[in-house]
Formats: sequence, C-alpha cells, structure tokens
Amino acid sequence: MSAPESPAYTELFDHLKHTALLGSCAHLLGWDEQTYLPSQGAELRADQMAMLAGMVHERTTSPRVGELLSQLEADGGLGDETPVSANVREARRTYERATRLPQKLVEELSRVTTLSQQVWIEARHQKDFAQFLPWLEKVVALKREEATAVGYGDGSPYDALLDDYEPGMTAATVQEAFTPLRNELVQLVQQIAGSSRKPDRSIITRAYPVDAQRAFGRQAAEAIGFDFSAGRLDEAAHPFCSGIGPGDCRLTTRYDEHYFPQALFGTLHEAGHGLYEQGLNRDDFGTAMGHSASLGIHESQSRMWENSVGRSREFWQHFFAPAQRAFPTVLDGVTLDEFYRAINIVEPSFIRVEADEVTYNLHVMLRFELEQPLISGDLPVADVPVIWNETFEKFLGLTPTDDAVGCLQDVHWSAGLIGYFPTYSLGNMYAAQFFNAAQEELGDLDEQFARGEFAPLRDWLRTNIHQRGHQYQADRLLEVVTGETLSHKPLTDHLKHKFGQLYGFE
Amino acid sequence: MSAPESPAYTELFDHLKHTALLGSCAHLLGWDEQTYLPSQGAELRADQMAMLAGMVHERTTSPRVGELLSQLEADGGLGDETPVSANVREARRTYERATRLPQKLVEELSRVTTLSQQVWIEARHQKDFAQFLPWLEKVVALKREEATAVGYGDGSPYDALLDDYEPGMTAATVQEAFTPLRNELVQLVQQIAGSSRKPDRSIITRAYPVDAQRAFGRQAAEAIGFDFSAGRLDEAAHPFCSGIGPGDCRLTTRYDEHYFPQALFGTLHEAGHGLYEQGLNRDDFGTAMGHSASLGIHESQSRMWENSVGRSREFWQHFFAPAQRAFPTVLDGVTLDEFYRAINIVEPSFIRVEADEVTYNLHVMLRFELEQPLISGDLPVADVPVIWNETFEKFLGLTPTDDAVGCLQDVHWSAGLIGYFPTYSLGNMYAAQFFNAAQEELGDLDEQFARGEFAPLRDWLRTNIHQRGHQYQADRLLEVVTGETLSHKPLTDHLKHKFGQLYGFE
Repeated sequence: MSAPESPAYTELFDHLKHTALLGSCAHLLGWDEQTYLPSQGAELRADQMAMLAGMVHERTTSPRVGELLSQLEADGGLGDETPVSANVREARRTYERATRLPQKLVEELSRVTTLSQQVWIEARHQKDFAQFLPWLEKVVALKREEATAVGYGDGSPYDALLDDYEPGMTAATVQEAFTPLRNELVQLVQQIAGSSRKPDRSIITRAYPVDAQRAFGRQAAEAIGFDFSAGRLDEAAHPFCSGIGPGDCRLTTRYDEHYFPQALFGTLHEAGHGLYEQGLNRDDFGTAMGHSASLGIHESQSRMWENSVGRSREFWQHFFAPAQRAFPTVLDGVTLDEFYRAINIVEPSFIRVEADEVTYNLHVMLRFELEQPLISGDLPVADVPVIWNETFEKFLGLTPTDDAVGCLQDVHWSAGLIGYFPTYSLGNMYAAQFFNAAQEELGDLDEQFARGEFAPLRDWLRTNIHQRGHQYQADRLLEVVTGETLSHKPLTDHLKHKFGQLYGFE
Repeated sequence: MSAPESPAYTELFDHLKHTALLGSCAHLLGWDEQTYLPSQGAELRADQMAMLAGMVHERTTSPRVGELLSQLEADGGLGDETPVSANVREARRTYERATRLPQKLVEELSRVTTLSQQVWIEARHQKDFAQFLPWLEKVVALKREEATAVGYGDGSPYDALLDDYEPGMTAATVQEAFTPLRNELVQLVQQIAGSSRKPDRSIITRAYPVDAQRAFGRQAAEAIGFDFSAGRLDEAAHPFCSGIGPGDCRLTTRYDEHYFPQALFGTLHEAGHGLYEQGLNRDDFGTAMGHSASLGIHESQSRMWENSVGRSREFWQHFFAPAQRAFPTVLDGVTLDEFYRAINIVEPSFIRVEADEVTYNLHVMLRFELEQPLISGDLPVADVPVIWNETFEKFLGLTPTDDAVGCLQDVHWSAGLIGYFPTYSLGNMYAAQFFNAAQEELGDLDEQFARGEFAPLRDWLRTNIHQRGHQYQADRLLEVVTGETLSHKPLTDHLKHKFGQLYGFE
C-alpha cells in the first residue's frame, strides 16, 4: 500500500483540505474588507476574522495532525522529492511552526498588530514616529519572542521569521546575494544620474481618464492570460492579489488619473501573481502541491510580468497603438520611444511602492539592513528613524524629509510582517533567472511580445513553476528550473543592459 | 439573581452569538455569490457554504443548548413578554425545529435543492415542465417529510413549513385573511379594466440611462434613511437585501434601461428591508431581540417604502423635479400626474415580480392555493401546470402562454422554499395596518413626504417595529403596535381609494 492510499494520509489530507476551505472563507472576507466593506462593518469583520483565524489555528494544531504525521513518517515510502513527500513535508513544517507558538503569543500578536496598525495610520498621517514608537517596540518584542519560540538552530533569530515567508531561506544567504546586488545598483543609479538623457516625465502624468485606464488594464491582464472567468479585478487603497481558492482569484489595483503607470503596472503585477494562483492544480487545493512555493517565488511571477514583460519595449511595440486609441488626447504625437523612456524613468525617490525597476531593490535592502539588528536586539527601536535616514542617504543619495516618507511609509512592521521585505528582492532575482531560462528554451521571447504573443511564456511558467506548487523549496525549485543557485547577476546584467541602452552608456 | 445574569444564560448566548457570527460569514459569502463571484468559483463556493451550514447546524443542535434551555426554563423568572423571555423562547423554537430534523433529511434537502435549482433554470429556459417534474416531486416529498418531522399539532402539515418563515402563523389564519382579500382585489381589477382612463405607459419605457438610474436610486435610498456607511447597493440578477450583521447591510437591484420602475422601486423595496436591518439593536446580535420578527414583518417594511411611500403622489411631488434633472430628455414635457399615473398602471400580467400593487397579491394567493394541496398530498405534482393555469385564469383573467411565464417562473419551489409565498401578502396587509397606525400618530405623513421628510415615519418604524426585534411573534407585534389583529381591510381600503382616484371610479 503506497502512502497516498493509506488511511492516515487520507485522514490527514481530508483534515487539511477542510482547514484550507475554512481559510478560503477568511480570504474572501479579507478581500471584501479591502474592497467593499462599509465602514461601520469593520468591527463585525474583525470579530469574524478573529473567529475564523482561531478555528483555523485550532485545526492546524490539532494533536491528531501530529499523530498522523508521525505515523506517515514512520511508515516511510514517501519517496524522494515526490508530490506526496512534499505534501507531508509541508504539513509537518506548518504543524511544527504552529504548535511551537504558544496560544497566548498568537493572540497577543493578533491583538497588538491590529491596534498598532491603527496607531501607525495616525502616526504616518501626523509624521510623528514618537506616537508609533511604543507600538513598534511591542511588535518587535513579540516577533523576537516568536523567533525564540520557533527556533533557528545555528542561524540567526531573523531566520525564524524569514522562514515563515520564504521556507528554508536564511539571512546569511540573503545577505550574500544582496551585498553585490547593492554595489552594482548604487553604481548603476549614479551612472543614470550622470547621463545627459532626460526622458519626458510629463508624458505619463497627463490626464488619463480612469474609465479608459480600467478598460485598458483589463485588456492587458487578459492579453497576458489572466482568466476573468476564474477571477476579478477591483479597486483597493493598497493593491493586492488574493487567491481565494480554485476558480476564484481576485486582483485589485488603484487609479491615479495623473499617473498612468500606477494602475497599469500594478494590474500587470497583480495579474502575474494571479497567473501563479490560476496555474496551481485545482485538485491539490489544501496541500503543498496546490500551494505556491514561497513569497519570493510568488513575487518573481508578478515582477516578471510587470517589468520583464510590461516595461519592455517589445510589449509596447504591440500595445502602444491600442494605448493611443484608448488615450487619444494625451498620447497624440507621442512616439513609442518617448513613451518607453517615460515609463522607465530611473530616479531615486522616497517611497518604495512608487520606485522604478532599478532603485526598488535599494529600498528593500534598506529594510533588511534594519530588520536584522532590530530582531537581534542590536538596534534599539527608538533609533530607527536616524538609522533609516542615514542608510537611505547611503543607498539612494537622498535624505527623507520626514518620517512619513521615511520609516513610517510601510504597513508591514505595524502588521508584524518582519522578515517579509527580502522576498521582494529575492523575487526580482528569481525572476531574472527564470526569465533567462525561459528565453533560452523558448527563443525569441521579445519578438513574441512584439507580436502580442504571451502564451508561450505563460505556459512555460505554468509547467515549470505554477503546476509544481510547493513540491520544492524556493532554492531547489530555482535549481530544478534553471540549473543555477540564487544569484544577483542575471538581474544586474538585465538592468545594466536595459538602462545602459536607455540612458546611453552601455 | 435574574436570568440574564445566570451562568446558563451567559453560556447559552455566548454560544448563540458565536453561531450567529459564523452565520454572518455565510451571509457574506452568499451575497458575494450573487454579486461578484467569478463563474469558475461556483464549485468552491458551494463547498464553502456547505461547510459553514454544517458547522452552524452542528452548533445549533448541540445537546448543550438543550441542557441550558431546560435549566433556564426550570429556573423561571424570565418574565412575561420581556426581551429575556423572547430570547429564550426563540432559542427554544430554533433548537426544537433543528433537532427534530434528521441530519439525513437536512443533507438530502440541501443536495436535492441545489441540483433542482440547476434543473429548474434549464427547464424554465426550455419552457419544459416535464424536465422539472421529477425534481419538484422530490422536493415536495422531502418538504412533506420535513413537515412530519417538525410536527403541526392539530393544524395542517403546511403550518409546519409556514412556521419556518412566519413563526406562529397558520394556514387557517392566512386563508381567513386571503379569501376576502382576493374577492375585493378581483373586483378592483375588473373595475380598473373597465375604466376609460388609460395611462401612458411609454413614459416609463423610454431610455433611462443606467448610470443616472444608479445615482438617482442611491439618492432615493439615502433620502428615506438607508445608511450607506453601514451598507451598500450593488447589482444582482435576482435582487435581495442581506443583513450580514451589525454595521453591514447590503442591498442589490437590477437595471433595465427601458423600464424605469424596475431598479428604482426595487431599490426602495430593498432599502425598506435594509432600514429594518439597520434599525435592529447592534448589541442584541445573535439573539431574538436582535433579529427581525418574521418574513412577513420584514416584507411589511419593504412594501411600505416601495408602495405606500415610493408610489405615492406626494413622494413624487418631492422627487419629480430631481427626476427631471436626472433624466432630462425622457421626462421633458411630462407632467407630475402623467408620471404618477404611469408608475401606477394596473394590468394583469403573467410574472409576479413585475406585477403592480393591486394584482401582485393575486399572484401570491395563487401559489398559496397550490402549495397547500401539494403538501397535504391532494394535488399530484404532475397536475401543477394545469391547476396553475386554471387558477390564474380565475384570479387574473389570463391564461399563461407557456410554463416559463406560468408555474416555472419562480425559484422558490426548486429551492425548497414552500410556505414562503404567503409572507409576501401578509407583508402587504401588515404594511397597510402599520401605515394607518403611523399616520394616526404622526398626522400629515403625506405632506411630510411632499416636503421630502421621511425621518418621522422611519423613526416611528424604528421605535415601534425595528428595535423590538423578535420580542413578539408577528400577530402579537401587530396587536401591540396597531391594537388590531390581521385584516385585509386597511390594504383593500387603501387600494380602492388610491386606484379609484387614479382610474376615476371612487
């Protein structure tokens, strides 16, 4: 009798699928909270979410799960790197992490991060870090407790947090890739700043009617293959993609009439996440094989469609004519190349989510630089604004004018998401490595984009990444797909080539 | 120690509130299913809903609930007609009904009605009752089983079904009110048909732009007091109001560019339901005191705002000028009276949901006439089309041209909602009785409407009906508020007066 036919396997995965189904209800409620919930419904929603989270946690930590896992592991015969062994491996990882966290800590984290997000909103609004300080201190203290509870072997406490978002990844590995990446990027930013070519930014800040943006963004998402019969596109203040479950994946974006890139590239970004979710095997819902491999791998998909595809010249060889039809008054008389240069302006700025393809990773690395000593205890929370600004100056050559555009700009810390930021830049590096592998196998990707053909890349990603679910950890998946280990080089090569051409110094 | 302070009361209502919170998650998912769910997400949604329904049922029938109820009832001291006694009474009623239904019957009803709704859609589309017949036979058989399981004392099996929607109501009481109502209405319809006055229907079938309808409908819902900070208005194929829970009540409507009354009166109707939900005491969520009294009382609120208010001449004294501004091309040169007559055209037609204020109740009574013998077993399901058409001819003087506009028009039977229809006409009768009581107490309601003042009526309803929740059963609430028992007379007096004036025979 093979493992998948054993009663223990069946019982375990019936249990986990039921838990996932309960989680999918919470995902829908979470989506609704960000899109359509009336303001007075916030309290009810908090109660609903807390209840569902409690029920999911109870099911996740049920002792029966531990018994079944031990039985399956003792029985053996799971195979090496098989889907079945991956399902058991991840069920074990999830169970271990959940059971190591004391119920009291889980509840305290939930309570404190809910409240601290409210304080953060107000503090950012008032540009007043002092208001947020006691709450950030509480969050950091609780996350340090979490790291201790989870454990981190010979590594650093930061590893225990990172592992929640990027299973198996360590701070040391991240650091190894980030250091050369940063050096190359700082130099590239300086080269670009020194270039005499100055693209015309006004092209993308003219009045682009929101209704036309909405239709154009949907058209682009459809073109790259997002299936609207199994998904939606709505508006949210903080855009996201939510894979509710099989057949239901929801994207959000936001529209700024006077800043064209925001909604369109945001839509392509979220649609990239969405293609991953839609590419997972429906029947594997509730198991590792039906789940994404990591946040970094997820981000590699969104960044690839946003940047490698959406900000390429070839994409616009195909889409610029439709864009001119969609926005006739603003794009009349603009050439393809002027437009291409405008959507690829590189310029150090304060806000991460508005940063260009080159400077973006510097924003991420700054956060990684601060998070590690915060969690090790080497950086007192009160010193965050000073260190933030110093590091910002070092990485980007600018000093934030206030904390609202400095260390108060992101929601993550107030929400307890420490260890999450590195996955953004890991995603960018993975994306470049995956893209090279795809290019090698599929040939003239650029020419395909110019003809409006996105199916070959999408299908390649589906086969090589999406349908593999969480069969492998991220580093192993990278190896299986590209034959390489994590490297900054494909990303910096791409950026140096692209922006060297754009700014005339290649 | 009074009952509300006893540990049993606390434990029971903590349990019931938790169950209600779980139910509120299902309500949100149900709303989403009708508004925004992508088509491929239907299977996941069915699984989610079945899971939540199962969990709610399990909590509802928990033996501990029975123990706590028995303890509270034995302790006594609940008081007479107090909120506490109402909470215990309704908890007992819900518990009894739920525990009397065998789990197998509950599951079979859920399975059969889910499938039979699919068959019904197809059968209606193909105008083919034969296709639906075996499924309707199954549904009727299961509903008969349900009636037997629930029990009905000395009454009829139909009582057991009716009681689910209109607690305490019996078929005999409904019949007693319906018989004179029908006689009066049949006569009134004939008088109207004989009138030489023929309103200009073309006024309401011109092109009313949907965007303008949307804005105008929202404006009207806001004017009568629907609070959009605690609710929403969206679109759905089959409009409804869903009270998700405290602070979150969602209305839906549908737009027909060439039939103005549909969206607007639909919106006022659902907003009437919404005002009831928004008028319930937030703190009583999960108890009888925080719940509507019955579907009939609910319908009295929607019908009052739709008809007594929305289709009154005074409402349009206030709203016709805004309507002319919102729809300048179609309403240019139309007088208030021409418009008022057009939105109040009485004309027998096949479809219940499109029927006017006078003929609507005849549609409802036709269904009541058929449902009783279906449940008693006196009417074979196969005979439904013939009996439907005969009765339709008798009540409305028309014979349906096919079953799609005849016995296949409503979703209710396929969904197992037998015993539900009477609540629509009960609602109309209650509405007329409540409205007279309000008028007596508040004086010149008509003049208030003409000035655009709807707060006095709304506040009166809030105090006298909404905030009382389910303290009383419907008949007792009617008595407490109006001093009367159920009667058709206020409704027929209103209709005879209004349409006598409109059609010139009063």
